[in-house]
Amino acid sequence: MINIAILGYGTIGSGVAEVLNTNKDSIAARAGQEVNVKHVLDLREFLGDPIQDKIVHDINVILDDPEIDVVVETMGGTTPAYEYVKSALLKGKSVATSNKNLVAAHGAELIEIAKKNNINFLFEASVGGGIPIIRPLNSSLTADEIEEITGILNGTTNYILSKMTKDGSEFEDVLKEAQEKGYAERDPKADVEGLDAGRKIAILTSLVCGQQVDFEEIYIEGITKITAKDIKYAKALSRAIKLFATSKKHGDSFYVMVAPVMISPEHPLYSVNDVFNGIFVHGNVLGDAMFYGSGAGKLPTASAVVADVVDIIKHLHKNIFIDWSSTKKELIDISNTSKRFFFRVHKDTSRDEILKVFEGAQIIDLEGLSDEYGVITQSMTEKEYNEKTSNFDVINMIRVED
Amino acid sequence: MINIAILGYGTIGSGVAEVLNTNKDSIAARAGQEVNVKHVLDLREFLGDPIQDKIVHDINVILDDPEIDVVVETMGGTTPAYEYVKSALLKGKSVATSNKNLVAAHGAELIEIAKKNNINFLFEASVGGGIPIIRPLNSSLTADEIEEITGILNGTTNYILSKMTKDGSEFEDVLKEAQEKGYAERDPKADVEGLDAGRKIAILTSLVCGQQVDFEEIYIEGITKITAKDIKYAKALSRAIKLFATSKKHGDSFYVMVAPVMISPEHPLYSVNDVFNGIFVHGNVLGDAMFYGSGAGKLPTASAVVADVVDIIKHLHKNIFIDWSSTKKELIDISNTSKRFFFRVHKDTSRDEILKVFEGAQIIDLEGLSDEYGVITQSMTEKEYNEKTSNFDVINMIRVED
Repeated sequence: MINIAILGYGTIGSGVAEVLNTNKDSIAARAGQEVNVKHVLDLREFLGDPIQDKIVHDINVILDDPEIDVVVETMGGTTPAYEYVKSALLKGKSVATSNKNLVAAHGAELIEIAKKNNINFLFEASVGGGIPIIRPLNSSLTADEIEEITGILNGTTNYILSKMTKDGSEFEDVLKEAQEKGYAERDPKADVEGLDAGRKIAILTSLVCGQQVDFEEIYIEGITKITAKDIKYAKALSRAIKLFATSKKHGDSFYVMVAPVMISPEHPLYSVNDVFNGIFVHGNVLGDAMFYGSGAGKLPTASAVVADVVDIIKHLHKNIFIDWSSTKKELIDISNTSKRFFFRVHKDTSRDEILKVFEGAQIIDLEGLSDEYGVITQSMTEKEYNEKTSNFDVINMIRVED
Repeated sequence: MINIAILGYGTIGSGVAEVLNTNKDSIAARAGQEVNVKHVLDLREFLGDPIQDKIVHDINVILDDPEIDVVVETMGGTTPAYEYVKSALLKGKSVATSNKNLVAAHGAELIEIAKKNNINFLFEASVGGGIPIIRPLNSSLTADEIEEITGILNGTTNYILSKMTKDGSEFEDVLKEAQEKGYAERDPKADVEGLDAGRKIAILTSLVCGQQVDFEEIYIEGITKITAKDIKYAKALSRAIKLFATSKKHGDSFYVMVAPVMISPEHPLYSVNDVFNGIFVHGNVLGDAMFYGSGAGKLPTASAVVADVVDIIKHLHKNIFIDWSSTKKELIDISNTSKRFFFRVHKDTSRDEILKVFEGAQIIDLEGLSDEYGVITQSMTEKEYNEKTSNFDVINMIRVED
């Protein structure tokens, strides 16, 4: 029997306890021994809950307990999660976490500490919820140079965009509804402004290049500016608007960005709707691959955390190599990357002028939207686009992917 | 530096050499050392080819070479692959194979030998080509009870069905074209009669239940009976016909079958077209997940083989646990499983009689097909369906999945 402790008994933490209980026998068979939750750290008491007897309020009870070999961190945020996880690793306890903020900010350091102590720091659940992506990148796609990873990595924004598309409704209304349903946080900033997806693509890019990609250096746009009108144009163009987190290799580096894009039905991520996540990977020998599943939610995320716990138990005093050093990777400025752009202008903007500046552009007029029109450009760099539009009053711009 | 030998320098074997060469540096970084192809076993000479100097014709040169730590088997078939692989493992050499026939027939035994010798027998490329599915099942989805695996596991038949759908053409014509393009073998039986997909779903089911699932006991139908008329009905119903390899848990066992099915656009595998493969997995806590990519082809398959080689080098004298014993798993007879059925009858078949026997069935008349009509039943067991149709002259039947 192996004893574990769970830090934080919120949605994911209680999900971990539930999964360990529901699939007790098969998990024990795969881990080679029974898994026992000995302590649960939480500020609350959970009176009357079966977990009540295991609740502790002091992290040192866990850190100082020699019987605890594995710590599950599901608190979220970096304070005090970073301090707790680091202390656990330094005490020789392996850690499984679902915390993308922690991994994006301190992954390289925590991996290094685990390596030195011949234990493990695993974080499958930090990206894509229940979708296996971290372990495949780390141990299945090792024959490839990964040239692109593009993901729909945030379930909340994908739900909002899917719903806006389905109902023709406005962002604020759908956000409010998503909050009521529990699909969006009361403070939705991390999701709707793209920060959550940004942290996740930072983690994936770090794993692909084996170096530290700083979240702060990623170009990030959220979905707050997307309106029902934008969706209407996308539909007219037989396209969908998705929040993409993209990492593309150029020479020895990558350009990494999070932004809404208009994609065609041929794109492998086109049919990833609602709260689902999808991750597209292109390798130089593998070609295209795609991973799809529940990117969030209590049990799918807990499933990934528990799979890490099983892997940790199978490698109890043997470090699983993860290639992610603290050496910083300088990213490529997105201003030199090329793509097509969709943008909207007021009706009095000269069409001749637009077509003169944007050679080969396509103009889109929509029924019922007589005071404006849309433009899709040919491929050009971000810099060129910005220069060319500097004299026009652009209502909104969305990048186009084919 | 680690020395490996490749058995069989056909499409996949030469692909392995090419991948090792193309991504030499990144593979060495991930494996922790350089990978050198020392011997290649083949009957041919490859005069003038850079591989010429490495060609050997006698397996014993490889088996008796103490410098060879890893053997890659890409010969296909079970004779002599089984004997060669077993001998290599018994000599303490780890093996990576792309050979589904070998794995389906002898997987349990070879895994056991590897375990006893503290080495590894890995076979990621045997199912789904470049798509990571064996390793995710073995080490990522370990917190779940896998309740269903359904895959489009054969690229040739998927290409044929996609092409028949696109062009409205007949099976034989598309098969001939596929053979000319090299997408189908000269002897296409293993693909078009569903045997290849059957071996692959046998492997996946063995991994899910940890016991031996015999390929011979799987109910298998191929696509040879699918006609342009069937496709026409499917289109009229907004459905697609795909060759599904399915394994579903019922109680303590599984029913496993390979057969063409009509699926709706809502099914996650609906948009898996051409030579691509897709594998849908449902876990009791994970929910739905899907893996998509190149299911065949030289480089994608070689990518999976080389990823196994890297994993073997990272675990050179440490067995990676694979739960697949030789204890035989008895499968559930499909005759008691329920689903809906689509079938076609001649125009003189009494519609009243059909609707009397198949309560709630839907009748489909197609323009241009006036000498027959189609029927979609409500859900019933295979046994019931067979009993109910025993008095009718059925032209063709295809199962329906929603």
